[in-house]
Amino acid sequence: MSLDLATIQAAHARIRPHITRTPVLTNARLNAACGGKLFFKCENLQKAGAFKARGATNAVFSLADVEALRGVATHSSGNHAAALARAAKLRRIPAYIVMPSNSAKPKIRLVEAYGGRITFCEPNQAAREATCLRLLEETLANLVHPFEDERVMAGQGTAALELLEEIPDLDYLLCPVGGGGLLCGTAVAARALRPQIKIVGTEPAGADDAARSFRAHQRIPLTTSDTIADGLRTSIGQTNFALARQYVDDIVTVSEAGIVAAMHMIWDAVKIVIEPSAAVPYAAIMEQRLDVTHRRVGIILSGGNVDLDALPWIGKKGAP
Amino acid sequence: MSLDLATIQAAHARIRPHITRTPVLTNARLNAACGGKLFFKCENLQKAGAFKARGATNAVFSLADVEALRGVATHSSGNHAAALARAAKLRRIPAYIVMPSNSAKPKIRLVEAYGGRITFCEPNQAAREATCLRLLEETLANLVHPFEDERVMAGQGTAALELLEEIPDLDYLLCPVGGGGLLCGTAVAARALRPQIKIVGTEPAGADDAARSFRAHQRIPLTTSDTIADGLRTSIGQTNFALARQYVDDIVTVSEAGIVAAMHMIWDAVKIVIEPSAAVPYAAIMEQRLDVTHRRVGIILSGGNVDLDALPWIGKKGAP
Repeated sequence: MSLDLATIQAAHARIRPHITRTPVLTNARLNAACGGKLFFKCENLQKAGAFKARGATNAVFSLADVEALRGVATHSSGNHAAALARAAKLRRIPAYIVMPSNSAKPKIRLVEAYGGRITFCEPNQAAREATCLRLLEETLANLVHPFEDERVMAGQGTAALELLEEIPDLDYLLCPVGGGGLLCGTAVAARALRPQIKIVGTEPAGADDAARSFRAHQRIPLTTSDTIADGLRTSIGQTNFALARQYVDDIVTVSEAGIVAAMHMIWDAVKIVIEPSAAVPYAAIMEQRLDVTHRRVGIILSGGNVDLDALPWIGKKGAP
Repeated sequence: MSLDLATIQAAHARIRPHITRTPVLTNARLNAACGGKLFFKCENLQKAGAFKARGATNAVFSLADVEALRGVATHSSGNHAAALARAAKLRRIPAYIVMPSNSAKPKIRLVEAYGGRITFCEPNQAAREATCLRLLEETLANLVHPFEDERVMAGQGTAALELLEEIPDLDYLLCPVGGGGLLCGTAVAARALRPQIKIVGTEPAGADDAARSFRAHQRIPLTTSDTIADGLRTSIGQTNFALARQYVDDIVTVSEAGIVAAMHMIWDAVKIVIEPSAAVPYAAIMEQRLDVTHRRVGIILSGGNVDLDALPWIGKKGAP
């Protein structure tokens, strides 16, 4: 692996014309509630609604012209699929996307809107990989894995780059962990720019393989997951876990009720739409999984793709 | 009236340390839908959740020290109340707020959170004014009217100032109209900075006094109102109407269904929380009340204070 600050800076230069420089928001009410100072990097306001646009765009624009012509392919039920379809459209090359047949309708529509060529498969990991492999063989397209890909990780790290450019003196940097692409890009960028920063991955207790792996010092993939945070139902990747061990200070977990409460609180106070996965770091603060009193805390809000007609706090018992 | 660009620029210098410079967001999907280019000035991300922080802060910080000591007072069911309480707290003076007894609970809580001293009254205009007058006599506080106040209008005009600083070449500038404070500040600032700009006020058909007054060339106050846009149930003020006739190009109206559809669309595409009043300008575009094809259109999203547990598109027939 050669993921380092220079790679991430090169990715930033490459993708800058194609992505949004997302704002960093603060909120007096949330600061008062935790006793620290929170800086929200709003990747929910990113193109295609998530930080995934960064990694996918970097991968697509890293390809040589002759490679690019064959297109790109991936398997994803969510934001990476839309981000890759968008990046491919920008480069005018085909994007072949394998999606499980039970994918959320808004995510399918988003991929279609960007012109992605969808192949549906049975909703399990084996079917996803087999279908993707078949597509790769047929099309000779370039695989862009959602997180086990250095170009993707380098792209994801550009959010931390921008955040630390604006707020250089952070004590903590928090982000959600699914496959670990965002975590690794973030950690490598932040560790280089600010060696003393504490980098904390945050994960739903219902999909806590990264936290368990981190404590066990070996990768223990998920056998099952149960969380509303649909972006985080994946096991951390092999290369991602190796990097996380090297660069990350801690990985903490949060409850499902905590995720919903954090999501509601951020919508209500900060006035932005974030998806459940993006609420996980703030849930860790609400549930006091780390002490941020008098600390300056960067939080990467990973995305905002959520079904407005099926909100988790509406029509449920025990909603906040 | 001496409201002019210089007054608005002075207001901006005065309030800048106390308010957020809100971001201007764009969205490819909404641009594609209307054929124009939309620039959303996000006052929903403003302190206390609405542009009202600008006017109230300008009024409070315009007071001489000796006046300020007696505090400020107003009657308001909504965002102006919270904004005034917040500004008073910043200056460490009391804020006396008359609120109708049927005010929305989140708005009451917000005023309380900023330390506002609330007096409840019967929910009608006469009771509001009588109660406020009594309070003014008892406390000798300074009245800060929500819109018929030059300091308030000058403050509200600073949003357009910032927007035009970032995007100078707008063809249109749209904002909602209630009492007309935002419309007048916006129109005076924009007309001075860009004489050829078209300034369009947008209003719910269910509270269309400003549109009717504009066409009749005389002020016709509301006798009743029926709209989900709770910030716009007020009649346009006398001084506000006089200024609007001078500076505004048109006032158009939108349907209730259009407001809800526009609100849903902005949440879904732009990933931000806006209140119904803030959706009215985009509703005017969706309902083709003006032709924005190939035009660059500034839209002031007025606020984001909405009850997340009672969204208008949930549990209603005919929701989008």
